[in-house]
Amino acid sequence: MKFNIALLAGDGIGPEVINEAVKVSDAIAKKFNHEITWTPALTGACAIDAVGVPYPDETHEICMAADAVLFGAIGHPKYDNDPSAPVRPEQGLLLMRKKLGLFANVRPTFTFPSLIDNSPLKRERIEGTDLVFLRELTGGIYFGEKGRKDDGETAFDTCTYTRSEVQRLAKKGFELAMTRTKKLCCVDKANVMETSRLWRETVQTMEKDYPEVTVSYEFVDAVAMRLVQWPNSYDVLITENLFGDILTDEASVISGSMGLMPSASVGEHTSLYEPIHGSYPQATGLNIANPLATVLSAAMMFEDAFGLKEEAEAIRAVVNKSLEQGIVTEDLAGKDAKAYKTSEVGDWLVANL
Amino acid sequence: MKFNIALLAGDGIGPEVINEAVKVSDAIAKKFNHEITWTPALTGACAIDAVGVPYPDETHEICMAADAVLFGAIGHPKYDNDPSAPVRPEQGLLLMRKKLGLFANVRPTFTFPSLIDNSPLKRERIEGTDLVFLRELTGGIYFGEKGRKDDGETAFDTCTYTRSEVQRLAKKGFELAMTRTKKLCCVDKANVMETSRLWRETVQTMEKDYPEVTVSYEFVDAVAMRLVQWPNSYDVLITENLFGDILTDEASVISGSMGLMPSASVGEHTSLYEPIHGSYPQATGLNIANPLATVLSAAMMFEDAFGLKEEAEAIRAVVNKSLEQGIVTEDLAGKDAKAYKTSEVGDWLVANL
Ligand SMILES: CC(C)[C@H](C(=O)O)[C@@H](O)C(=O)O
Ligand SMILES: CC(C)[C@H](C(=O)O)[C@@H](O)C(=O)O
Repeated sequence: MKFNIALLAGDGIGPEVINEAVKVSDAIAKKFNHEITWTPALTGACAIDAVGVPYPDETHEICMAADAVLFGAIGHPKYDNDPSAPVRPEQGLLLMRKKLGLFANVRPTFTFPSLIDNSPLKRERIEGTDLVFLRELTGGIYFGEKGRKDDGETAFDTCTYTRSEVQRLAKKGFELAMTRTKKLCCVDKANVMETSRLWRETVQTMEKDYPEVTVSYEFVDAVAMRLVQWPNSYDVLITENLFGDILTDEASVISGSMGLMPSASVGEHTSLYEPIHGSYPQATGLNIANPLATVLSAAMMFEDAFGLKEEAEAIRAVVNKSLEQGIVTEDLAGKDAKAYKTSEVGDWLVANL
Repeated sequence: MKFNIALLAGDGIGPEVINEAVKVSDAIAKKFNHEITWTPALTGACAIDAVGVPYPDETHEICMAADAVLFGAIGHPKYDNDPSAPVRPEQGLLLMRKKLGLFANVRPTFTFPSLIDNSPLKRERIEGTDLVFLRELTGGIYFGEKGRKDDGETAFDTCTYTRSEVQRLAKKGFELAMTRTKKLCCVDKANVMETSRLWRETVQTMEKDYPEVTVSYEFVDAVAMRLVQWPNSYDVLITENLFGDILTDEASVISGSMGLMPSASVGEHTSLYEPIHGSYPQATGLNIANPLATVLSAAMMFEDAFGLKEEAEAIRAVVNKSLEQGIVTEDLAGKDAKAYKTSEVGDWLVANL
């Protein structure tokens, strides 16, 4: 098969981790007789520096024309202290999600047996955790009307959802649940919010189309607790944009393997794969960043965007092997163990595929 | 001194835990020569059953006339499965907060040395944790305009804040920080929400009035992570209503002592003290619920509402003693240890004051 992949390396360590994912993807393509064309494009702070906007039209066209997008990370400290600055890297992210119609953010949290003791949670609490959040990504308070009144003394944000927005996200949730343990949790705040009541009533109506799926409805505050107490009691969780932002980040640290967690954003026009970690500016250029989350994001891309399960499994297998053999960057290296460089880990993966 | 305390026992185990807090408070009052008049009033599901509304006017008048309110818990399973039912116990809670002007919810999370191994977190992560959330309680998306459009197909909720609402909450935060380690964290989502930008700019302007306080600004998703990773890195945190709902619940489980955490809601007209746990309907009438969070809420009341620090310390000391000596209800009793009844714990506290 032939693929055209848009390559958005972004800022900070983005280019370094993307580089290793490209190496591994190319090696897999060679092994399985595929042909990948990578088309690099600017986004984030580096796009602002180059052309003044964080998500240039040219980048958008490259993404629209691609079979999938592989994304690094964006963000630069020079924009950190002024969230109301007129142009910010994050705006590029939001614009990209909206323009590409990436309405479903898929964020798995799972554990690696060899890393389980890195978790802040006790072993018996975290063992066996394997959950996936589906976060709605193009609606809610992120994109509703917002502004000031009364000479700037009053501020407002509007959270809006339509039934069809809920349906298309929930449909993905039910479908994913069917491929797993058939347990779906709808996370909302229906005791307070009208949008949550729309979510809940919409999901309730869809239950009859998936009679095998057991659906539970839980309030966001209760889920924030149970994620810490019994994360392994969850399987698939669906939720709106802002709750998803908070809960997926919370979930990402419980496994102790945040540097390894991949994610996908799927939508109307294309799908995008990215590590959940940030641009880690302090490490830029040092060749120390952990590339595994990006490599595993490429695996998700092979499986979900191209339907190539075997290729994906091959990537995951070699990542597991590197963890078991301690071919890891300094964030994962034990106290007295050798820490490998970003590029060394990538080289090892390619050599051991 | 003489106090008039409104007693809102509420639903489920509310009356049982309130009963023990009253016993302990009366014993403290006797010992220190105070006189307490308790005025019981209905709220929650029991109020709906009795008079059709969850926060009757009579209850409101009793609270307004009181020096403080001691509150149990509300909620009943018969209202759980239909969040859009016309009358619900939680509405009473929201109405009470609004009508009493309880704008600041004070939620400490701390650890008890003897209970630290109950935490889902590893000992080295949770040890030394002693933080307080100040959650804004009468604004934000809870009370903004909400509803449906397009024949019910679109739902919306509005989050609104005025500068003065932020100021009065932040003022409490700065003042509290001054009595502790002088570290204040403002939690927001200023990279997305206009209300958060108002929060941030308002708190920034107030910094000059508290030059000794070190203020940090963190996004809500980052705080949701760090609370699990390094809870002991926080001291005082201020935040808006919905973020506070989620984060205080998350924080409450990390200590492993949720059944012991007290809280206060302070405001314009009076202040209210309550355990953070719920009404635990399954345990109603069984005399097994843990009364310590309510007893510790009474201690907060003595200290903060009446300025009686010695009395508060005496209550806390006897609670610590009960924990050390294992005079605890079944939720805290070790596997082969005796579990005491709710009322037995209260009796022991009174006898050992
Ligand atoms: C950078 C920010 C706007 C973004 C979000 O809130 O969606 C980030 O936190 C994320 O989760 O991808
Ligand atoms: C019952 C509910 C409306 C309430 C809230 O969200 O404020 C509760 O979760 C709380 O935190 O006291």
